[in-house]
Amino acid sequence: MDRINIKQLAEMLNLSIATVSKALRDSYDISSETKEKVIQLATSLNYEPNPHASSLRRNKSRTIAVIIPEIANNYFALAINGIESVAEEMEFHVLIYLTHEDFEKEKMFTKHLLSGRIEGMLVSAASSSSDYSHLKEMEQNGIPVVYFDRVSEEEDSWRVTTDDFESSRLATSHLIERGCKNIAHLAISPYTSIGKKRLSGYLRALADNNIEAKESLILQCTNNDREDAIAIANLLSNKICDGIFAAVEKYAILVYEQCNILNISIPDEVKVIAFSNLQTAALLNPSLTTITQPAFDIGKQAAGILFNLLGKKNQYSHPMTIVLKSTLIERVSTANKLL
Amino acid sequence: MDRINIKQLAEMLNLSIATVSKALRDSYDISSETKEKVIQLATSLNYEPNPHASSLRRNKSRTIAVIIPEIANNYFALAINGIESVAEEMEFHVLIYLTHEDFEKEKMFTKHLLSGRIEGMLVSAASSSSDYSHLKEMEQNGIPVVYFDRVSEEEDSWRVTTDDFESSRLATSHLIERGCKNIAHLAISPYTSIGKKRLSGYLRALADNNIEAKESLILQCTNNDREDAIAIANLLSNKICDGIFAAVEKYAILVYEQCNILNISIPDEVKVIAFSNLQTAALLNPSLTTITQPAFDIGKQAAGILFNLLGKKNQYSHPMTIVLKSTLIERVSTANKLL
Repeated sequence: MDRINIKQLAEMLNLSIATVSKALRDSYDISSETKEKVIQLATSLNYEPNPHASSLRRNKSRTIAVIIPEIANNYFALAINGIESVAEEMEFHVLIYLTHEDFEKEKMFTKHLLSGRIEGMLVSAASSSSDYSHLKEMEQNGIPVVYFDRVSEEEDSWRVTTDDFESSRLATSHLIERGCKNIAHLAISPYTSIGKKRLSGYLRALADNNIEAKESLILQCTNNDREDAIAIANLLSNKICDGIFAAVEKYAILVYEQCNILNISIPDEVKVIAFSNLQTAALLNPSLTTITQPAFDIGKQAAGILFNLLGKKNQYSHPMTIVLKSTLIERVSTANKLL
Repeated sequence: MDRINIKQLAEMLNLSIATVSKALRDSYDISSETKEKVIQLATSLNYEPNPHASSLRRNKSRTIAVIIPEIANNYFALAINGIESVAEEMEFHVLIYLTHEDFEKEKMFTKHLLSGRIEGMLVSAASSSSDYSHLKEMEQNGIPVVYFDRVSEEEDSWRVTTDDFESSRLATSHLIERGCKNIAHLAISPYTSIGKKRLSGYLRALADNNIEAKESLILQCTNNDREDAIAIANLLSNKICDGIFAAVEKYAILVYEQCNILNISIPDEVKVIAFSNLQTAALLNPSLTTITQPAFDIGKQAAGILFNLLGKKNQYSHPMTIVLKSTLIERVSTANKLL
């Protein structure tokens, strides 16, 4: 059976659509007798008010979208939990869209969402994103956008991030303190805000310690695991580095896998540190030293800002960037032999 | 600025709404001069046809929903990739909803989705799901539902699963072959299809080997990590088991964590096997023996069935259950000392 609509309901009851609609909304200008009749039939026929129609009228869908690049990553899983903790309180639905790091997909989703499906949007940009005009367009159409993790660099954007530059400087300094002289950086797309900042932090730590940066030690990873694995295997088998700072956890996993294959010992031959919220970081062989982000709180804060913006005019007059600190957790992958 | 609608567009152009609508759809009964005028203004004002309105008309949203219990789990990440590989080909959008194992949330989402937002649905049921009437209702309203992983047990449902019973029998037999005499089972909700089957497979293997099943060795885990950790710690410190078969990977992670805390050696004191698609299973200390599910293919097949069902009448006359085999991958966590 097709879904019953209000028109059919009105016809069966021999009432006007307006009367049925009012009765369903418990309006005071409908008699309780009529209300009962309407509600009884509506219930027995399984009538559901069409939320699209009513959201068009009220322009409210009580839905926000979260656009993220990937799902197989604890960071995003935790951030979504943070977002949902706020949305639940506000009685909003959360739609999740995956871009798989594809800028075209991100644009397509945004276009699709532009047309009333959602009230607001939380975005962590795809690594191939090079411009933000499609998201700017959302804002111009009254749908607030709050960025988290991988943020827009336009000045008039709301952003929640971690201290990527400082954390990367610390991560690199940690390897230097542990005696590493040739530190490789496994970098993510320079098109992402975090890619740039994590690279800058790495370079700053080298400069502060009078260590020359070498192009051969900066590996621009792709999103193709096989290609990245080959590049990392080359780096490792050439024995040109004694420390690796991975900008994201999946590159650290590839390093572990390649070290196993090449029989290279972590931390004896190469020390490894990575940005990671991997649940198993402490259980790896050896346990992985991480820069752990406050992912849940980043999601929670971003959602909090979004709900504050909903319904407000001129919401982009005073955008802010909220920075939540990450934590360096030392484990065996960066330990010295004697430790 | 608010979104421009077709009515405003028509007013500005001094044309009827019907004319503007036809012009935008490139209808042959509108002059090319008028079309150009309409399209020019529509483009410059950033007009987007309202997909809600048109989906109401056409009853097509080109959107499917995927309802899953959790996100921090490689199984679901892979299954979603499989689903998206099909949806992308069909040019459909995929909305992801998380139930966090909460039956009430699952019902609420379904109710929300019932009203035209989507064309079809892929569901892995929440572990607290005890009935499927809310999903039955979707089907009765012409929105096909295909279950994967945690499926409905109603006979007239489309289902894609792995061979949960047989895999669990194998996992348990593997521990018996490795010399375990007291094998604990960390079970998931008996309300899920997989919870029942995995427990049955475990019991069958014990019976086949004339090992008595003991209630004290069957741990019904909750979804509260802290409670589960305490229960697992008790199990381990009582030294009543020499083998553990975990029905899901997160329980195996808890076992590893508690063994670290209690200084219990895997595999010397206790051997561990788990259903898991954990990317780092091979990198753990020790590497984890797993029952690895064809998660990507399960998602892909489920989506393939859904798209076949879309638009067909009487789609539930011949529902089928597709079973894809899992693989037992032996690693160090179940090795004997001499291996």
